[in-house]
Amino acid sequence: MSENVPPEQSQSQGHDHQSLTTPLLSAQHRSTNSTSQVAIVGVNLCPIESLDYEIAENDFFKQDWRTRGRIQIFQYVFMKWLLCFLIGGIVSLVGFCNNLAVENIAGVKFVITSNMMLAGRYDTAFLVFFLSNLSLTLFAAIITAFIAPAAAGSGIPELKAYLNGVDAPGIISLRTCIVKIMGSISAVSSSLLVGKAGPMVHTGSCIASLLGQGGSRRYGLTWKWLRFFKNDRDRRDLVTCGSAAGIAAAFRAPVGGVLFALEEMSSWWTSGLLWRAFFTTAVVAIILRALIDVCLSGKCGLFGKGGLIMFDVYSANISYHIADVPPVLLLGVVGGILGSLYNFLLDKVLRVYAIINVKSITYRIFIACAISIFTSCLLFGLPWLASCQPCPLDTAEACPTIGRSGNYKKFQCPPGHYNDLASLIFNTNDDAIRNLFSRNTDSEFQHSTMLIFFVTCFFLSIVSSGVVAPAGLFVPVIVTGASYGRFVGMLLGSHTKLNHCFYALLGAASFLGGSMRMTVSLCVIILELTNNLLLLPMIMMVLLVSKTVADTFNGNIYDLIMKAKGFPYLEAHAEPYMRQLTVADVVSGPLQLCHGFEKVGNIVHILKTTSHHGFPVIDEPPHSESPFLYGLILRAHLITLLKKRAFLRTPVRIGAEAFRHFLADEFAKKGLGNVDKIEDINLTDEEMEMFLDLHPFTNASPYTVVETMSLAKASTLFREMGLRHLLVVPNMSNRAPVVGILTRHDFMAEHILGLHPLLVNSKWKRLRFHFPPFLKIF
Amino acid sequence: MSENVPPEQSQSQGHDHQSLTTPLLSAQHRSTNSTSQVAIVGVNLCPIESLDYEIAENDFFKQDWRTRGRIQIFQYVFMKWLLCFLIGGIVSLVGFCNNLAVENIAGVKFVITSNMMLAGRYDTAFLVFFLSNLSLTLFAAIITAFIAPAAAGSGIPELKAYLNGVDAPGIISLRTCIVKIMGSISAVSSSLLVGKAGPMVHTGSCIASLLGQGGSRRYGLTWKWLRFFKNDRDRRDLVTCGSAAGIAAAFRAPVGGVLFALEEMSSWWTSGLLWRAFFTTAVVAIILRALIDVCLSGKCGLFGKGGLIMFDVYSANISYHIADVPPVLLLGVVGGILGSLYNFLLDKVLRVYAIINVKSITYRIFIACAISIFTSCLLFGLPWLASCQPCPLDTAEACPTIGRSGNYKKFQCPPGHYNDLASLIFNTNDDAIRNLFSRNTDSEFQHSTMLIFFVTCFFLSIVSSGVVAPAGLFVPVIVTGASYGRFVGMLLGSHTKLNHCFYALLGAASFLGGSMRMTVSLCVIILELTNNLLLLPMIMMVLLVSKTVADTFNGNIYDLIMKAKGFPYLEAHAEPYMRQLTVADVVSGPLQLCHGFEKVGNIVHILKTTSHHGFPVIDEPPHSESPFLYGLILRAHLITLLKKRAFLRTPVRIGAEAFRHFLADEFAKKGLGNVDKIEDINLTDEEMEMFLDLHPFTNASPYTVVETMSLAKASTLFREMGLRHLLVVPNMSNRAPVVGILTRHDFMAEHILGLHPLLVNSKWKRLRFHFPPFLKIF
Repeated sequence: MSENVPPEQSQSQGHDHQSLTTPLLSAQHRSTNSTSQVAIVGVNLCPIESLDYEIAENDFFKQDWRTRGRIQIFQYVFMKWLLCFLIGGIVSLVGFCNNLAVENIAGVKFVITSNMMLAGRYDTAFLVFFLSNLSLTLFAAIITAFIAPAAAGSGIPELKAYLNGVDAPGIISLRTCIVKIMGSISAVSSSLLVGKAGPMVHTGSCIASLLGQGGSRRYGLTWKWLRFFKNDRDRRDLVTCGSAAGIAAAFRAPVGGVLFALEEMSSWWTSGLLWRAFFTTAVVAIILRALIDVCLSGKCGLFGKGGLIMFDVYSANISYHIADVPPVLLLGVVGGILGSLYNFLLDKVLRVYAIINVKSITYRIFIACAISIFTSCLLFGLPWLASCQPCPLDTAEACPTIGRSGNYKKFQCPPGHYNDLASLIFNTNDDAIRNLFSRNTDSEFQHSTMLIFFVTCFFLSIVSSGVVAPAGLFVPVIVTGASYGRFVGMLLGSHTKLNHCFYALLGAASFLGGSMRMTVSLCVIILELTNNLLLLPMIMMVLLVSKTVADTFNGNIYDLIMKAKGFPYLEAHAEPYMRQLTVADVVSGPLQLCHGFEKVGNIVHILKTTSHHGFPVIDEPPHSESPFLYGLILRAHLITLLKKRAFLRTPVRIGAEAFRHFLADEFAKKGLGNVDKIEDINLTDEEMEMFLDLHPFTNASPYTVVETMSLAKASTLFREMGLRHLLVVPNMSNRAPVVGILTRHDFMAEHILGLHPLLVNSKWKRLRFHFPPFLKIF
Repeated sequence: MSENVPPEQSQSQGHDHQSLTTPLLSAQHRSTNSTSQVAIVGVNLCPIESLDYEIAENDFFKQDWRTRGRIQIFQYVFMKWLLCFLIGGIVSLVGFCNNLAVENIAGVKFVITSNMMLAGRYDTAFLVFFLSNLSLTLFAAIITAFIAPAAAGSGIPELKAYLNGVDAPGIISLRTCIVKIMGSISAVSSSLLVGKAGPMVHTGSCIASLLGQGGSRRYGLTWKWLRFFKNDRDRRDLVTCGSAAGIAAAFRAPVGGVLFALEEMSSWWTSGLLWRAFFTTAVVAIILRALIDVCLSGKCGLFGKGGLIMFDVYSANISYHIADVPPVLLLGVVGGILGSLYNFLLDKVLRVYAIINVKSITYRIFIACAISIFTSCLLFGLPWLASCQPCPLDTAEACPTIGRSGNYKKFQCPPGHYNDLASLIFNTNDDAIRNLFSRNTDSEFQHSTMLIFFVTCFFLSIVSSGVVAPAGLFVPVIVTGASYGRFVGMLLGSHTKLNHCFYALLGAASFLGGSMRMTVSLCVIILELTNNLLLLPMIMMVLLVSKTVADTFNGNIYDLIMKAKGFPYLEAHAEPYMRQLTVADVVSGPLQLCHGFEKVGNIVHILKTTSHHGFPVIDEPPHSESPFLYGLILRAHLITLLKKRAFLRTPVRIGAEAFRHFLADEFAKKGLGNVDKIEDINLTDEEMEMFLDLHPFTNASPYTVVETMSLAKASTLFREMGLRHLLVVPNMSNRAPVVGILTRHDFMAEHILGLHPLLVNSKWKRLRFHFPPFLKIF
């Protein structure tokens, strides 16, 4: 096997006693790899900091609640559930207020413009519409750009990366949370074609994280009794519950929310977490249900029938037969193709925006305004293209519509007529979806109307998603998909017996499947949105077909965005070229070591010259018989030790003595962005010559791999166990007891292929359709 | 740290060159631990054999499909999906036929007895009822006891253990599968209070496993082209899909099936598996839907409205208010208590049966007959206790019921009257559930009727579940819970505005939650069974309350059964006492080693004197500079090498030479029960003196832990990575390169607490209610 060891490795094999007694002091900047990637939002990546179970697993602070006493266990379990309850409660209130605000702001806007149009004052109506949209967009863009740039966009890709172990500071903070809520309300109300689900997921996660940290330390809003969860794992679990609550609150889909968090968001999952996420969304469902009961009695202003009220497409006598299957399959195939095209275009547009956005804040706000103006013009201008339709005689609804919600907008039409395009486009997204899903309205829309609406939605939603404001993707995809599906249903005409509303539903499913590529969670979200179980086999079929078709072209929309943002996401499977390498092939030296008794000066030097977050601890003669690996110590703990100045004049073991100086709290994981820096600690020369006993503060059970372990298996281990550091030990006697340390970056394709460029060709060939070169326009 | 090393460990530290060159020949029977536990079914445990990803990860046979060529990847992916399609197709057909057979057999029985009773011939009716039940039970019991004892009971606990890595031979075989199908049909038809969901899950898993193995080798039914999946991981994934298909086919609940497999069955889960399980259940849903369409036109004999037809409790105008919450909460609390009591009694009854069952087959069949006779007497006798009710005037149904299905059974009543208890008890379980869930029948049942029915179901289902025949638990729990819920609804009377059918639904949810302890999957299964989304928040609340209450008393019903059967199930969390131990504390020596070049005689000796399934491979001077750990070789591969007689006269490395003699197939994981034995191989004395080059057949990347690793973390690693062997390496230089090997049994509480009896007190104290000693009746 020794012929496989690459040059770097043979260097570290050269460690002898001399090199071990004096830690190597040369700087080693592995984390600079990350800066070579372009971060397309204003988020500073700090990717080495990641989730781990390792933290505080030293003698001093054994962090497992199961070892505690009965009362402490009870307290811990109770706090976990209490926090979930609080998350559910707050997220449902936020979600409800969000919806209420949107319905009222957008409602007032539409009522005023409609009234002006009824009075024939079209130019004033346009001016009001245009200016209110512009000012709402401007508000959202300004608070996002100046206060919390991390609140822009959907937020789901960032959270997915966070739950995979990537800390992006600012993603989860009080400021981001407030901007996200305010920005989402004004962006959605401003008639931009942006969604609310992504922002709700982000808001839910922020709320969960803030509660888990015990409030926001930056603003002094902290509650001691809430600061119960000192480790990443508990916080990550809370954030997962928060994201489930977000979907539950956005769509009133509690089970769908849990499954979304499970399928799309989280990288690790336990049955206990499933159970708590379920509890959280149950709280959301019950509170929302109670609040809606209040609103149904008419106390909520213009709170309409869209959004939180289900799109009820139930029909007791749905019957579909074998003849309906071929058109539905076709719908799925085309939906898959459109969905992947949507992803492709969205990815490109976001990359273009990213290039513009880095230039200055003015550009970003300018783009937002341009999109708003363009949208207003389209929404107001397009309905003039549609011809007026006479009101149907047998409808249960008023025609033309009086007030805000309704299928038959009058727009510019003469009395007794309605403008079918205006019913869709000159409306909130929720109401447009409701109209598309409405039953027994097969003759309401013209072919040209539906086609225009579909094309507008398709492109407008792509363009709008890059705006510097909270902008979700779920609702735009549903609107686009539903219009596509309904158009297909209209084309089929009398060849099918299914009502057009079912085609709209299946179209939405196919477009969601083609763009989001989820299965079970989408299926349940659609069920919960539409309250229709009998169509389940059809929806499953469409989702399967569209996902399969779309997967042959490109990836999941959130993964594409995450990739474009350069997050070091650890995939669940190892790439094949990793099988051809051993861990020794990617470990880059020289290795930074600490000793069980280390001079303060050496520690300060190591901390100042490297950016590593963990260091192996070695015991050597005369403190042990032969050199052996004691464990792993974290940078944060070293800094805490230096700050507390628990120095020794001579290198002797301290026992119970050590624990008197420290509180467990000091070794707890800090909230994001609250990290102490080595530069802030000033030590005298005398202190620099003293010693620290690291033993009680070292994690004595680090995970290790043998140096001949295949990189693929090490990568699986790293991913599955949620590690942050993985020590490499020799497989042969007569060697230093540790030969290297692996971090997240050592498993990134760029790092590995940079070291071994010949392996580029052995990347996993997914069965994907590749466009011939001349078709590659971007 | 060296003071922690226990005596056994210091022995293995004594390995020097001498002990390494001659493998230790003493036998080491660690697997005898398992035999100390009582297996309460006729299943032979073979627990060391477990799932692993390690298999065939040697030079010779690198088993990762992603490294293959495009066409092979396509073939592999296509086969995976084709198998899922076949599983879905076959399971849906089996599920449909199962239902059809039950409905017809039980239907004919009830029609004949009802007709006789209409004619006043009560004694003949009882005799027919009694004899047909007895003969059906006898048939089920005889085929189960004599042909496939593993088919008795639900099958879910065994499958859960299998998916956790425990092979119980016979659990998944063609014989078990056929007996399970036939036995389930006759047991359910014989009016025993047993369910069909558990048997369907088992059947689905068997079908999946047989397809994955390419058929049953024992009966010569094999298809070469199906034998594509050579490793445990792919087979386990197929079995998971099969179990999802089973629930989907039993309840027509495709999404619920996927979630059930995820939440209850599987120990490992990937997004790819979720996606394939979803596909499988979609196939089931679509085929079932098509078959039911055929049946609805009346071509399926007595195929009624129960079972596969949804229990449609939809009501567009459900409204519940804050006043409905307290009774529903109370329902949940009491349901949880009853559910845990149910689990407690069931566990005790099953243990009593197990003691009787081991005595002889005659006892088992006698018990089955006794239960059948008792059930027949109860079902026929109890309705006489209920008073006859006059038929309601405003009902849409015929009263008394004509034919089989219906709410108003006449039984012994005069014309124009019906017996409400007979409507529930003298019926199939599916029809009883349908009657309990039926809307606008609040005045149909009397209080006493409902109470009698609830008590009968509660105890009869506990007694029946131990019968030597396929017997599920889902349906009995739903019947019992629904009757309990409806009884509560009747007690509340005018204090609630909710229809009694909703109380029946919530009661079923509370009882399921209290007994099965699932959350999301139960919620979705109930939704899919009843087609009622508006009640979702209530169902979630009830499930949460009942699970929480029940968890304070005891565990999940399947876990209790699994524990009683003595399966070495690896829990997801590590026990606290494991934190106080290092891996060195539980490794029991002496260690059996192989060398890279090993004498045939030594290998035969090792294989004959130990029952281990894997051996570390060491390279030593003169073949390397210093002793080093080369990897791990499996017993099965050693036996294959011995069988092929690929012996060398001198210890030299063989390269490409090795691969000419072998087919990849020979190193593939065999189907269950097809293991070659060392005793079957006869070698000459000359051959015994020759050598084998083990290098190409060794897994060179085994997972390892350092000997000072805490046992808790090693256990997490073992569980999360789905390992079968974990090598222990020293943390100090100048030692043998491997000091031990950990298997599943080293992580079992019995083993650890046997070695360290003082730790018994530091087991995790769950927050459970403990009965005072004088209340412990068992």
